[in-house]
Amino acid sequence: MKKVKKKKVQVLILMGSKSDQEVMSHTEKVLEDFGISFEKAASSAHRNPERTKKIIQTSTKKGTKVIIAGAGLSAALPGFVASHTNLPVIGVPLISSPLSGLDSLLSIMQMPSGVPVATVAIGKAGAKNAGILAAQILSLTDKRLKRKLAQFKKSQKK
Amino acid sequence: MKKVKKKKVQVLILMGSKSDQEVMSHTEKVLEDFGISFEKAASSAHRNPERTKKIIQTSTKKGTKVIIAGAGLSAALPGFVASHTNLPVIGVPLISSPLSGLDSLLSIMQMPSGVPVATVAIGKAGAKNAGILAAQILSLTDKRLKRKLAQFKKSQKK
Amino acid sequence: MKKVKKKKVQVLILMGSKSDQEVMSHTEKVLEDFGISFEKAASSAHRNPERTKKIIQTSTKKGTKVIIAGAGLSAALPGFVASHTNLPVIGVPLISSPLSGLDSLLSIMQMPSGVPVATVAIGKAGAKNAGILAAQILSLTDKRLKRKLAQFKKSQKK
Amino acid sequence: MKKVKKKKVQVLILMGSKSDQEVMSHTEKVLEDFGISFEKAASSAHRNPERTKKIIQTSTKKGTKVIIAGAGLSAALPGFVASHTNLPVIGVPLISSPLSGLDSLLSIMQMPSGVPVATVAIGKAGAKNAGILAAQILSLTDKRLKRKLAQFKKSQKK
Amino acid sequence: MKKVKKKKVQVLILMGSKSDQEVMSHTEKVLEDFGISFEKAASSAHRNPERTKKIIQTSTKKGTKVIIAGAGLSAALPGFVASHTNLPVIGVPLISSPLSGLDSLLSIMQMPSGVPVATVAIGKAGAKNAGILAAQILSLTDKRLKRKLAQFKKSQKK
Amino acid sequence: MKKVKKKKVQVLILMGSKSDQEVMSHTEKVLEDFGISFEKAASSAHRNPERTKKIIQTSTKKGTKVIIAGAGLSAALPGFVASHTNLPVIGVPLISSPLSGLDSLLSIMQMPSGVPVATVAIGKAGAKNAGILAAQILSLTDKRLKRKLAQFKKSQKK
Amino acid sequence: MKKVKKKKVQVLILMGSKSDQEVMSHTEKVLEDFGISFEKAASSAHRNPERTKKIIQTSTKKGTKVIIAGAGLSAALPGFVASHTNLPVIGVPLISSPLSGLDSLLSIMQMPSGVPVATVAIGKAGAKNAGILAAQILSLTDKRLKRKLAQFKKSQKK
Amino acid sequence: MKKVKKKKVQVLILMGSKSDQEVMSHTEKVLEDFGISFEKAASSAHRNPERTKKIIQTSTKKGTKVIIAGAGLSAALPGFVASHTNLPVIGVPLISSPLSGLDSLLSIMQMPSGVPVATVAIGKAGAKNAGILAAQILSLTDKRLKRKLAQFKKSQKK
Repeated sequence: MKKVKKKKVQVLILMGSKSDQEVMSHTEKVLEDFGISFEKAASSAHRNPERTKKIIQTSTKKGTKVIIAGAGLSAALPGFVASHTNLPVIGVPLISSPLSGLDSLLSIMQMPSGVPVATVAIGKAGAKNAGILAAQILSLTDKRLKRKLAQFKKSQKK
Repeated sequence: MKKVKKKKVQVLILMGSKSDQEVMSHTEKVLEDFGISFEKAASSAHRNPERTKKIIQTSTKKGTKVIIAGAGLSAALPGFVASHTNLPVIGVPLISSPLSGLDSLLSIMQMPSGVPVATVAIGKAGAKNAGILAAQILSLTDKRLKRKLAQFKKSQKK
Repeated sequence: MKKVKKKKVQVLILMGSKSDQEVMSHTEKVLEDFGISFEKAASSAHRNPERTKKIIQTSTKKGTKVIIAGAGLSAALPGFVASHTNLPVIGVPLISSPLSGLDSLLSIMQMPSGVPVATVAIGKAGAKNAGILAAQILSLTDKRLKRKLAQFKKSQKK
Repeated sequence: MKKVKKKKVQVLILMGSKSDQEVMSHTEKVLEDFGISFEKAASSAHRNPERTKKIIQTSTKKGTKVIIAGAGLSAALPGFVASHTNLPVIGVPLISSPLSGLDSLLSIMQMPSGVPVATVAIGKAGAKNAGILAAQILSLTDKRLKRKLAQFKKSQKK
Repeated sequence: MKKVKKKKVQVLILMGSKSDQEVMSHTEKVLEDFGISFEKAASSAHRNPERTKKIIQTSTKKGTKVIIAGAGLSAALPGFVASHTNLPVIGVPLISSPLSGLDSLLSIMQMPSGVPVATVAIGKAGAKNAGILAAQILSLTDKRLKRKLAQFKKSQKK
Repeated sequence: MKKVKKKKVQVLILMGSKSDQEVMSHTEKVLEDFGISFEKAASSAHRNPERTKKIIQTSTKKGTKVIIAGAGLSAALPGFVASHTNLPVIGVPLISSPLSGLDSLLSIMQMPSGVPVATVAIGKAGAKNAGILAAQILSLTDKRLKRKLAQFKKSQKK
Repeated sequence: MKKVKKKKVQVLILMGSKSDQEVMSHTEKVLEDFGISFEKAASSAHRNPERTKKIIQTSTKKGTKVIIAGAGLSAALPGFVASHTNLPVIGVPLISSPLSGLDSLLSIMQMPSGVPVATVAIGKAGAKNAGILAAQILSLTDKRLKRKLAQFKKSQKK
Repeated sequence: MKKVKKKKVQVLILMGSKSDQEVMSHTEKVLEDFGISFEKAASSAHRNPERTKKIIQTSTKKGTKVIIAGAGLSAALPGFVASHTNLPVIGVPLISSPLSGLDSLLSIMQMPSGVPVATVAIGKAGAKNAGILAAQILSLTDKRLKRKLAQFKKSQKK
C-alpha cells in the first residue's frame, strides 16, 4: 500500500488501518494541492509495532520533515510515532467506534509532557487541517510554499 | 526501581511513571496477600519504548503469566504491552489529568479488535481488582490459589 | 437457546438478552477459530437472576474456565457473574440505548474492589477481543493454543 | 449493623457499603421526621448477593412497602433489589469514584424494560428525596402522612 | 387530546408535546395490560403552565394516585408536576435534541431536595418502566394488581 | 430578602435558593456599576411556584425590563420565568451538584422552541456577564448607558 | 449573499458558513413573522475576520439593534461579534461535527466575564428561539411587537 | 507585561489573561532550556482583538516562526491567532472554569477546515509540550536544536 509520490519525501502520512484511507485522503489532497511530496502507509501501532517503527525510521532517514498520523479508537499511533522521532507529529482523531471520536481525541491529545502530538479536529476537517498545518511548518523555510499559503488564505476569504 | 520478589515470577507490574507508584502499590499488596510472586517496573511506553519492550520480553522469558499495566493521561502502556505479548494484559486507568481518568479509561479500554486489554476500574479500586483478576487467572492451574480466592470471597461477605 | 458445542466446555458466553446475539456471535467466531469449546446462553441478571445463577454454577461444575458476559444499558450481568464465581469474568459493553454504550461501559467497568470484571471495548471490537482474551488466558496451560495465538499475532501484522 | 426502629417496618434502607452511611443518614432523618418506621442494612449486591437477597426477602415478609437502595460505582444494588421484589424500589446514586457519580447514575437509571428503579438525584439531595418519595408513596393510604406532606410542602415555601 | 379511559382514574400520563405521543404510548400499553385506569394529556410546562397546573389539580381531585410525565430537552414538566402535587411523580426522559437525552435526563433527575421525581431510563425502556413502577406503587393496596405483577415477573423469566 | 434599590426597577434578579446569593452578588455589582436599578429575590420554581410567579408579575407591572435568573441542579427557574413573561430572560447556570454545572447548563439552555432563555457561562463569569448583557439590552434606549458600556469596553482593553 | 429586507435594519443574522443557511432560515422565518427587518450574511470569524468585522460595523452604523450569530465546531463567531460590539449578541450552537453540538455549545456559552453572548439551544430549536429573543429585546420599545409577542404566547398555549 | 528575551524572536507566547501566567511559565521554561528566543504577552482575543492582532502582526514581522497560545473557557485566542497568520499555531487548553478544561479543549481543537491549530494536552503537561513541539518545528532547520532534542529524548529515558 505504500506509495512514493516524489523523489524527496517531505511528509509521511500514517494511518492505523486501511479503513482510515477515505478520511485521510483529504490530507493527501491538501498536500498535493500545495505541491508537497509525501509517502503514506497503513500500519497499526498495536498490531505491528515493529513494522510501524521501521516505516517511521526509514522515512525519517529519507528526509521526511513532518509525520501525520490518523487513528481511531484507543488511537495509540500518533503517540507511538512521537515516541520514536523528534520530528513534529500531527495527530488526526478518527471515528471508529460509537463514541463519536471522543476516545481517539483523548488518546491522541492527552500526551504526557515530553512527547507532544499536535492534535487537530476529529475526522475530515482534521484530516484537511493536518495537511495545512504540515504546509505551514514546511513553509518556514520554503518561500514558494509561503506564497501558496498566502494565496490559500486569501482564497478562503471568498 | 525493578524489584524481584521471588525466584519464579508470575506477574509483571508495569506503570507509566514513578508517580503511579502509590496507587499501584494496592496491586502489590493484593498479590502479596495471595502469595503470588511478581516483579515491577516503572517504564513509559511514550518516553522509553525500547526499555519497556525489553522489560516485557525479559519478564516473559522468565515465565511471567500475567502483565498488569497502570497508566494515566493518553495511557498507551497497557495497549503497548498487549501489542508485544500474547499473555493476558490487565490495564488500570490512573488519574494524571483534570479529566478524572476519562482519558486513560478510553485510551486503555477502546483497543482495536485483535489486541485485547482487560480493563478494570479507575484508580485504587481498579489497582486492587487487577491483583485479584490476576489471581483468578493464575488459579485456573493452582489449587492452593483457588482455595485462597474462595476464602477471600467468603471473607468479603462479612 | 443454550447450545453445547463440545464435550468439555472451556468458556461460557452469557448475554443479557437475545437481541445481543448478533454482536456476541463475533465472540463465538473467535473461539471457534481457536478451537475453544464453549456453551452459550441468553439470561438476564435483572429478569431472571436465579436461572442466571444456575447457568453460572452448572457451567462452572462442568469445568468452564472463563466466563464472557455481554450486556447493554445498566449492564449488571458481568458484575453479577463475578459475584457468583471466582473464575475470570470478561465483560463486553453493548449498545442498547441512545447513550452509545457509555451506560453499559461504566456499569461493567466501575466494579468495586474485590469483584473484578475484565472489561473490553464497546460492541463488535470488544466481542472479538473477549474471545482473544479468553484464548490468552487458556493458553497459559495449553501449548497448542499458545502456538495458535502466536500465529494469529503474526497474521495480524499483514 | 441492621437496626429495627419500630415494630412494623414500612421502609427498608439498603446501602452497598458501610461508607455510604453518612449520605444515606439523610434518608433516615427524613423518614424519622415523617414518623415512618424503617430498618436499614449495609449489604453489597456484588460481595454478598445471597445475604442481600435474604435481607430483601425477610424485610418483604415483615411487610416493608418501599425499598430505598443507595450505591456508588457500578451501582448494581438498586437493580438487584428490583430483580428480587415487586415493591417500588428507589435508587440513590452515590459518589464513590472520581467520575462524580456519573457511573452510579447510569448504572441505576438505565434499567432494562421490565425492572424499573425510581432514580433520584446524586448524593445528599437524592438521599433526602428518596425519603420524601417513599413518604409520598406511603401517603396514598395514610391520611396522617398525607397531612404531614402537605405541611412539609407548605414549610418549604418559606 | 385528553382521554378518559375508565370512570375512576388511577394514573395521569402527561407529556410535554404531542410529538412525545409515540414513545409514551408504551406507558399506556403497560397500564392497559395491568388493567390500570388512566387519563392522558399533552401540555407543556413551558408553553402553558396554567393549563398544565389545572390538569394536575383536576386529575388529583378525581383521585389520581400517580402522575407519569415524559418530556425532552430542558425537561421541566416532571419537576413542574412535582412542585404542584404530593403524589408520587415518575419522570421519563425523552430524546428531542441531538444530545441523546442527556439534557432531559439531567433536567428530570437532578431535582433539588424537597421535590423528588422518580426518574426512569431514557426513551422507550423508560416509558415501559414508568408504567410498571406505577403498577408497583398501586399494588401496595391492590391484591389483584400484586398478583398480576407476580405473574408478569414470572413471565419475564422466560 | 427582597430589596428595592431604586424607585423605578429596571432589572429583576431571581435566584433559586439563598445559597445562590454569593455568586449572584456579582450580577448586582455589575448592575450597580452601570447605575441600573434592580430588585432581587430568592424564590424556588420547584418549592414555591406561586410566590415565584407573583414576584415575576409584580416586578413586570413595576416596569422591569429584563429578568436575570440563576439556578443550580435541575435549574427550572429561568425557564419558569420565561414561561410567565415576554421580557427577555437571562439564565445563569450555577453549581449545586457534583456535576460541575453540566446539569444546570443543559436545564437552562436546552429550552424548547417558543420559550427562549439567554444562557450565559457557568458560575461567577456568567453572573457578571448576565449583568453586562442586561446593560446592553437596556442601552438600546439609554444613551447614558451606551456611553458607559463603551467606556467599559475600553477599560477592558487594558 | 447579503440581503437587505427592509430599509431600516433591526437585526443582523450572521452565520459562519453557507452550510448553516438551512438551520438559520428558522431565525429568518420567526423575524419575518414578527415583522422585524433584518439583513443576513455568511462570514467566518476564522476565515475572514476583517470582512466579518466590517459587516458588524456597517450593520451597527445602519442602526441594527441585535446581532444573531450561528456557528458550528469551535464556534468563535458569536464571541467574535461580542468582542466588536456593545449590542446584545445571541449565539446559536450548530452541529457541524460528530460531537452533536457539544463543541459549539461550549465555545459559544463559556465566554469570559466582560464579553457576554446570549446562548440558546442547539440547532433548529435554538435558531427559532434566537428570533423570539430578538423580538423580546426589541419589544421593550415597540408596543406593536409587544402585542405580537403576547399573541404568540397565547397561540402557543393551544 | 510584554518581555523581549533575545534580539531575534523565534517564538511568540500569547495567553488570554494574566491569570494564565503560571501555567504558561512551563512553556517559557522549556524554551529557555532549549535556548529558543521568545517574547510573550497577555492579550485577550475577546477583550482586545485589535491589540492582540497587532501583537501577532508585529511579532510576525520581527521574524517569529511559531506562535503558542494558551487560553481557558471559550478559548478563542489560538483560533484567532490562526486566522491572522500562516505561521504554525500551537494551542494550549487551560482550566478557567469548573468544566476541567473540556470547554477550552473543544474550543481550541475543533477548528474548521482551513484554519488549523496544533492542540496539545490540557494544562501544565500541554504547556510543556507546546514548548517541545515548537522546538521540534524549529529544529527542522537548526542542527544545534536537533542535537538538543536528541539529548532531551535520551534524558527522558532515564
